[in-house]
Amino acid sequence: MLIRPAAFGDDEAIWAMLEPVFRAGDTYAIDPDISQADAIAYWTAPAKSTFVVESDGAVLGTYYLVRNTQGGGSHVCNCGFVTATAARGRGVAQAMLDHALEEAGRQGFRAMQFNFVVETNAGAIRLWERAGFETVGRLPRAFRHPDLGYVDARVMWKDLAFRPHTAP
Amino acid sequence: MLIRPAAFGDDEAIWAMLEPVFRAGDTYAIDPDISQADAIAYWTAPAKSTFVVESDGAVLGTYYLVRNTQGGGSHVCNCGFVTATAARGRGVAQAMLDHALEEAGRQGFRAMQFNFVVETNAGAIRLWERAGFETVGRLPRAFRHPDLGYVDARVMWKDLAFRPHTAP
Repeated sequence: MLIRPAAFGDDEAIWAMLEPVFRAGDTYAIDPDISQADAIAYWTAPAKSTFVVESDGAVLGTYYLVRNTQGGGSHVCNCGFVTATAARGRGVAQAMLDHALEEAGRQGFRAMQFNFVVETNAGAIRLWERAGFETVGRLPRAFRHPDLGYVDARVMWKDLAFRPHTAP
Repeated sequence: MLIRPAAFGDDEAIWAMLEPVFRAGDTYAIDPDISQADAIAYWTAPAKSTFVVESDGAVLGTYYLVRNTQGGGSHVCNCGFVTATAARGRGVAQAMLDHALEEAGRQGFRAMQFNFVVETNAGAIRLWERAGFETVGRLPRAFRHPDLGYVDARVMWKDLAFRPHTAP
Protein backbone atom coordinates (compact mmCIF):
# COMPACT_ATOMS: atom_id res chain seq x y z
CA MET A 1 0.00 0.00 0.00
CA LEU A 2 1.25 3.45 -0.95
CA ILE A 3 -0.09 6.49 0.90
CA ARG A 4 0.39 9.75 -0.98
CA PRO A 5 -1.08 13.28 -1.03
CA ALA A 6 -4.34 13.49 -2.95
CA ALA A 7 -4.32 15.33 -6.28
CA PHE A 8 -7.13 16.87 -8.35
CA GLY A 9 -7.23 13.73 -10.47
CA ASP A 10 -8.29 11.73 -7.40
CA ASP A 11 -11.58 13.57 -6.95
CA GLU A 12 -13.74 10.91 -8.60
CA ALA A 13 -12.06 8.08 -6.68
CA ILE A 14 -12.42 10.00 -3.42
CA TRP A 15 -16.08 10.70 -4.06
CA ALA A 16 -16.68 7.00 -4.85
CA MET A 17 -15.42 6.24 -1.32
CA LEU A 18 -17.13 9.12 0.47
CA GLU A 19 -20.52 8.77 -1.20
CA PRO A 20 -21.70 5.50 0.40
CA VAL A 21 -20.38 6.58 3.81
CA PHE A 22 -21.98 10.04 3.78
CA ARG A 23 -25.23 8.75 2.21
CA ALA A 24 -25.54 6.07 4.92
CA GLY A 25 -25.43 8.86 7.50
CA ASP A 26 -24.56 6.52 10.36
CA THR A 27 -20.98 7.56 11.16
CA TYR A 28 -20.26 11.13 9.99
CA ALA A 29 -22.19 14.19 11.21
CA ILE A 30 -22.56 15.37 7.63
CA ASP A 31 -25.70 15.99 5.60
CA PRO A 32 -26.48 12.61 3.96
CA ASP A 33 -27.71 14.52 0.89
CA ILE A 34 -24.46 16.46 0.46
CA SER A 35 -23.52 17.05 -3.19
CA GLN A 36 -20.39 15.59 -4.75
CA ALA A 37 -18.94 19.09 -5.16
CA ASP A 38 -19.57 20.03 -1.53
CA ALA A 39 -18.22 16.71 -0.27
CA ILE A 40 -15.00 17.08 -2.28
CA ALA A 41 -14.67 20.72 -1.21
CA TYR A 42 -15.06 19.62 2.42
CA TRP A 43 -12.67 16.66 2.23
CA THR A 44 -9.95 18.43 0.25
CA ALA A 45 -10.28 21.96 1.68
CA PRO A 46 -7.10 24.04 1.34
CA ALA A 47 -6.50 23.95 5.11
CA LYS A 48 -6.47 20.14 5.06
CA SER A 49 -3.72 17.70 4.16
CA THR A 50 -5.59 15.00 2.23
CA PHE A 51 -4.10 11.62 1.39
CA VAL A 52 -5.13 8.55 -0.57
CA VAL A 53 -4.12 4.93 -0.19
CA GLU A 54 -3.18 3.19 -3.40
CA SER A 55 -2.50 -0.44 -4.18
CA ASP A 56 -2.06 -1.89 -7.67
CA GLY A 57 -3.53 1.29 -9.16
CA ALA A 58 -6.70 1.08 -7.07
CA VAL A 59 -7.56 3.68 -4.45
CA LEU A 60 -8.48 1.93 -1.19
CA GLY A 61 -8.89 4.74 1.27
CA THR A 62 -8.57 8.44 1.97
CA TYR A 63 -7.95 10.58 5.00
CA TYR A 64 -7.40 14.20 5.89
CA LEU A 65 -5.44 15.86 8.66
CA VAL A 66 -6.27 19.41 9.73
CA ARG A 67 -5.61 21.86 12.55
CA ASN A 68 -8.59 21.37 14.87
CA THR A 69 -8.81 24.93 16.22
CA GLN A 70 -6.71 28.07 15.89
CA GLY A 71 -4.83 30.34 18.29
CA GLY A 72 -4.21 28.70 21.66
CA GLY A 73 -5.63 25.43 20.34
CA SER A 74 -3.43 25.23 17.28
CA HIS A 75 -1.21 22.44 18.59
CA VAL A 76 -4.06 19.92 18.20
CA CYS A 77 -5.03 18.26 14.93
CA ASN A 78 -8.08 16.38 13.74
CA CYS A 79 -8.51 13.68 11.09
CA GLY A 80 -11.21 12.00 9.06
CA PHE A 81 -10.81 8.52 7.54
CA VAL A 82 -12.81 6.61 4.94
CA THR A 83 -12.00 3.16 3.57
CA ALA A 84 -13.38 2.01 0.23
CA THR A 85 -16.26 -0.38 0.82
CA ALA A 86 -14.60 -3.10 -1.24
CA ALA A 87 -11.32 -2.77 0.70
CA ARG A 88 -12.63 -3.22 4.23
CA GLY A 89 -10.95 -5.75 6.48
CA ARG A 90 -7.55 -5.33 4.83
CA GLY A 91 -5.92 -3.03 7.36
CA VAL A 92 -6.41 0.11 5.29
CA ALA A 93 -7.76 2.14 8.21
CA GLN A 94 -4.89 1.01 10.42
CA ALA A 95 -2.37 1.98 7.73
CA MET A 96 -4.00 5.41 7.36
CA LEU A 97 -4.01 5.97 11.12
CA ASP A 98 -0.32 5.04 11.42
CA HIS A 99 0.47 7.42 8.57
CA ALA A 100 -1.65 10.18 10.11
CA LEU A 101 0.07 9.91 13.48
CA GLU A 102 3.46 10.22 11.80
CA GLU A 103 2.29 13.06 9.58
CA ALA A 104 0.86 14.89 12.60
CA GLY A 105 4.22 14.65 14.33
CA ARG A 106 5.97 15.89 11.19
CA GLN A 107 3.67 18.90 11.11
CA GLY A 108 4.46 19.63 14.77
CA PHE A 109 1.12 18.79 16.33
CA ARG A 110 1.16 17.69 19.96
CA ALA A 111 -2.18 15.87 20.08
CA MET A 112 -4.86 14.41 17.84
CA GLN A 113 -8.53 14.92 18.69
CA PHE A 114 -11.54 13.20 17.16
CA ASN A 115 -14.47 15.52 17.82
CA PHE A 116 -17.36 13.23 17.10
CA VAL A 117 -17.03 9.43 17.16
CA VAL A 118 -20.48 7.89 16.99
CA GLU A 119 -20.85 5.37 19.80
CA THR A 120 -22.20 2.67 17.45
CA ASN A 121 -19.12 2.91 15.21
CA ALA A 122 -17.54 0.04 17.13
CA GLY A 123 -14.89 -0.82 14.57
CA ALA A 124 -13.49 2.69 14.59
CA ILE A 125 -13.55 2.95 18.38
CA ARG A 126 -11.69 -0.37 18.68
CA LEU A 127 -9.06 0.84 16.25
CA TRP A 128 -8.59 4.20 17.98
CA GLU A 129 -8.40 2.58 21.41
CA ARG A 130 -5.79 0.04 20.27
CA ALA A 131 -3.76 3.00 19.02
CA GLY A 132 -3.90 4.67 22.42
CA PHE A 133 -6.78 7.08 21.98
CA GLU A 134 -8.75 7.81 25.13
CA THR A 135 -12.37 8.87 25.41
CA VAL A 136 -12.17 12.34 26.99
CA GLY A 137 -15.77 13.34 26.38
CA ARG A 138 -19.18 11.84 25.83
CA LEU A 139 -21.88 13.88 24.10
CA PRO A 140 -25.24 12.56 25.25
CA ARG A 141 -27.58 11.57 22.39
CA ALA A 142 -25.62 13.91 20.15
CA PHE A 143 -26.18 11.78 17.03
CA ARG A 144 -29.41 10.68 15.47
CA HIS A 145 -28.59 7.30 13.94
CA PRO A 146 -30.83 6.46 10.97
CA ASP A 147 -31.81 3.06 12.44
CA LEU A 148 -31.06 3.31 16.16
CA GLY A 149 -32.29 6.81 16.99
CA TYR A 150 -30.36 9.05 19.35
CA VAL A 151 -26.98 7.65 20.40
CA ASP A 152 -23.99 9.19 22.15
CA ALA A 153 -20.90 10.51 20.42
CA ARG A 154 -17.43 10.37 21.93
CA VAL A 155 -14.62 12.89 21.92
CA MET A 156 -11.38 10.94 21.63
CA TRP A 157 -7.83 12.14 22.21
CA LYS A 158 -4.25 11.02 21.87
CA ASP A 159 -1.18 12.90 23.02
CA LEU A 160 1.59 12.68 20.43
CA ALA A 161 5.24 12.29 21.24
CA PHE A 162 6.29 15.78 22.27
CA ARG A 163 9.08 17.03 20.06
CA PRO A 164 11.77 19.22 21.57
CA HIS A 165 11.20 22.11 19.19
CA THR A 166 7.55 22.38 20.17
CA ALA A 167 8.06 21.94 23.92
CA PRO A 168 6.59 24.74 26.06
CA MET B 1 -31.41 45.92 27.13
CA LEU B 2 -32.67 45.10 23.65
CA ILE B 3 -31.33 42.01 21.89
CA ARG B 4 -31.82 42.09 18.12
CA PRO B 5 -30.34 40.44 15.00
CA ALA B 6 -27.08 42.02 13.89
CA ALA B 7 -27.09 44.05 10.68
CA PHE B 8 -24.28 45.13 8.34
CA GLY B 9 -24.18 48.50 10.07
CA ASP B 10 -23.12 46.76 13.29
CA ASP B 11 -19.83 45.48 11.91
CA GLU B 12 -17.66 48.21 13.44
CA ALA B 13 -19.34 47.90 16.84
CA ILE B 14 -18.99 44.11 16.73
CA TRP B 15 -15.32 44.34 15.83
CA ALA B 16 -14.73 46.81 18.67
CA MET B 17 -16.00 44.08 21.04
CA LEU B 18 -14.27 41.11 19.38
CA GLU B 19 -10.88 42.74 18.89
CA PRO B 20 -9.72 42.91 22.53
CA VAL B 21 -11.03 39.41 23.22
CA PHE B 22 -9.43 37.78 20.18
CA ARG B 23 -6.18 39.76 20.56
CA ALA B 24 -5.88 38.68 24.21
CA GLY B 25 -5.98 35.07 23.03
CA ASP B 26 -6.87 33.69 26.45
CA THR B 27 -10.45 32.49 25.90
CA TYR B 28 -11.15 31.80 22.22
CA ALA B 29 -9.24 29.26 20.13
CA ILE B 30 -8.86 31.82 17.38
CA ASP B 31 -5.72 33.30 15.86
CA PRO B 32 -4.92 36.37 18.03
CA ASP B 33 -3.70 38.11 14.85
CA ILE B 34 -6.95 37.57 12.96
CA SER B 35 -7.87 40.50 10.69
CA GLN B 36 -11.01 42.57 11.20
CA ALA B 37 -12.47 41.24 7.93
CA ASP B 38 -11.84 37.61 8.86
CA ALA B 39 -13.20 38.10 12.38
CA ILE B 40 -16.40 39.69 11.09
CA ALA B 41 -16.75 36.99 8.41
CA TYR B 42 -16.37 34.35 11.13
CA TRP B 43 -18.74 35.95 13.64
CA THR B 44 -21.46 36.83 11.12
CA ALA B 45 -21.13 33.86 8.72
CA PRO B 46 -24.32 33.18 6.74
CA ALA B 47 -24.91 29.90 8.63
CA LYS B 48 -24.93 31.79 11.93
CA SER B 49 -27.68 33.76 13.63
CA THR B 50 -25.82 36.73 15.06
CA PHE B 51 -27.30 39.11 17.63
CA VAL B 52 -26.28 42.31 19.37
CA VAL B 53 -27.30 43.73 22.73
CA GLU B 54 -28.25 47.38 22.70
CA SER B 55 -28.93 49.81 25.52
CA ASP B 56 -29.35 53.59 25.12
CA GLY B 57 -27.89 53.36 21.62
CA ALA B 58 -24.71 51.61 22.79
CA VAL B 59 -23.85 48.05 21.77
CA LEU B 60 -22.94 46.05 24.88
CA GLY B 61 -22.52 42.53 23.59
CA THR B 62 -22.84 40.13 20.70
CA TYR B 63 -23.45 36.43 20.29
CA TYR B 64 -24.00 33.92 17.54
CA LEU B 65 -25.97 30.70 17.41
CA VAL B 66 -25.14 28.06 14.82
CA ARG B 67 -25.79 24.39 14.03
CA ASN B 68 -22.82 22.60 15.60
CA THR B 69 -22.61 19.69 13.13
CA GLN B 70 -24.70 18.47 10.22
CA GLY B 71 -26.60 15.30 9.38
CA GLY B 72 -27.22 13.12 12.43
CA GLY B 73 -25.79 15.84 14.66
CA SER B 74 -27.98 18.64 13.35
CA HIS B 75 -30.21 18.83 16.44
CA VAL B 76 -27.36 20.37 18.46
CA CYS B 77 -26.38 24.04 18.33
CA ASN B 78 -23.34 25.99 19.41
CA CYS B 79 -22.91 29.61 20.50
CA GLY B 80 -20.20 32.20 21.00
CA PHE B 81 -20.60 35.20 23.32
CA VAL B 82 -18.60 38.40 23.73
CA THR B 83 -19.42 41.27 26.09
CA ALA B 84 -18.04 44.75 25.50
CA THR B 85 -15.15 45.38 27.88
CA ALA B 86 -16.83 48.50 29.28
CA ALA B 87 -20.10 46.65 29.91
CA ARG B 88 -18.79 43.77 32.01
CA GLY B 89 -20.49 43.00 35.32
CA ARG B 90 -23.88 44.27 34.15
CA GLY B 91 -25.51 40.94 33.34
CA VAL B 92 -25.01 41.24 29.59
CA ALA B 93 -23.66 37.70 29.22
CA GLN B 94 -26.54 36.32 31.28
CA ALA B 95 -29.04 38.19 29.13
CA MET B 96 -27.42 36.86 25.95
CA LEU B 97 -27.41 33.31 27.28
CA ASP B 98 -31.10 33.49 28.21
CA HIS B 99 -31.88 34.85 24.76
CA ALA B 100 -29.76 32.17 23.09
CA LEU B 101 -31.48 29.34 24.95
CA GLU B 102 -34.88 30.67 23.86
CA GLU B 103 -33.71 31.24 20.31
CA ALA B 104 -32.28 27.71 20.16
CA GLY B 105 -35.64 26.33 21.21
CA ARG B 106 -37.40 28.46 18.61
CA GLN B 107 -35.08 27.09 15.93
CA GLY B 108 -35.88 23.54 17.05
CA PHE B 109 -32.53 22.57 18.55
CA ARG B 110 -32.57 19.91 21.25
CA ALA B 111 -29.25 20.69 22.90
CA MET B 112 -26.55 23.34 23.10
CA GLN B 113 -22.88 22.37 23.07
CA PHE B 114 -19.87 24.53 23.85
CA ASN B 115 -16.94 22.83 22.14
CA PHE B 116 -14.05 24.56 23.81
CA VAL B 117 -14.39 26.34 27.16
CA VAL B 118 -10.94 27.22 28.43
CA GLU B 119 -10.57 25.99 32.01
CA THR B 120 -9.22 29.33 33.24
CA ASN B 121 -12.30 31.20 31.93
CA ALA B 122 -13.88 30.89 35.37
CA GLY B 123 -16.53 33.55 34.90
CA ALA B 124 -17.93 31.84 31.83
CA ILE B 125 -17.87 28.40 33.43
CA ARG B 126 -19.73 29.72 36.48
CA LEU B 127 -22.36 31.29 34.24
CA TRP B 128 -22.83 28.15 32.14
CA GLU B 129 -23.04 25.92 35.21
CA ARG B 130 -25.63 28.14 36.87
CA ALA B 131 -27.67 27.82 33.66
CA GLY B 132 -27.53 24.02 33.84
CA PHE B 133 -24.63 23.25 31.53
CA GLU B 134 -22.67 20.13 32.40
CA THR B 135 -19.06 19.38 31.62
CA VAL B 136 -19.25 16.32 29.35
CA GLY B 137 -15.65 16.38 28.19
CA ARG B 138 -12.24 17.59 29.23
CA LEU B 139 -9.54 18.10 26.62
CA PRO B 140 -6.18 17.74 28.33
CA ARG B 141 -3.84 20.69 27.82
CA ALA B 142 -5.80 21.57 24.69
CA PHE B 143 -5.25 25.31 25.05
CA ARG B 144 -2.01 27.22 25.29
CA HIS B 145 -2.82 30.17 27.50
CA PRO B 146 -0.59 33.19 26.80
CA ASP B 147 0.36 33.54 30.49
CA LEU B 148 -0.38 30.16 32.07
CA GLY B 149 0.86 27.74 29.42
CA TYR B 150 -1.06 24.58 28.58
CA VAL B 151 -4.45 24.34 30.31
CA ASP B 152 -7.45 22.07 29.79
CA ALA B 153 -10.53 22.96 27.79
CA ARG B 154 -14.00 21.69 28.64
CA VAL B 155 -16.79 20.49 26.42
CA MET B 156 -20.05 21.70 28.00
CA TRP B 157 -23.59 20.60 27.21
CA LYS B 158 -27.16 21.45 28.03
CA ASP B 159 -30.25 19.55 26.92
CA LEU B 160 -33.00 21.93 25.87
CA ALA B 161 -36.65 21.46 26.64
CA PHE B 162 -37.74 18.88 24.07
CA ARG B 163 -40.50 20.21 21.89
CA PRO B 164 -43.23 17.84 20.73
CA HIS B 165 -42.61 18.46 17.03
CA THR B 166 -38.98 17.43 17.29
CA ALA B 167 -39.50 14.41 19.55
CA PRO B 168 -38.02 11.17 18.17
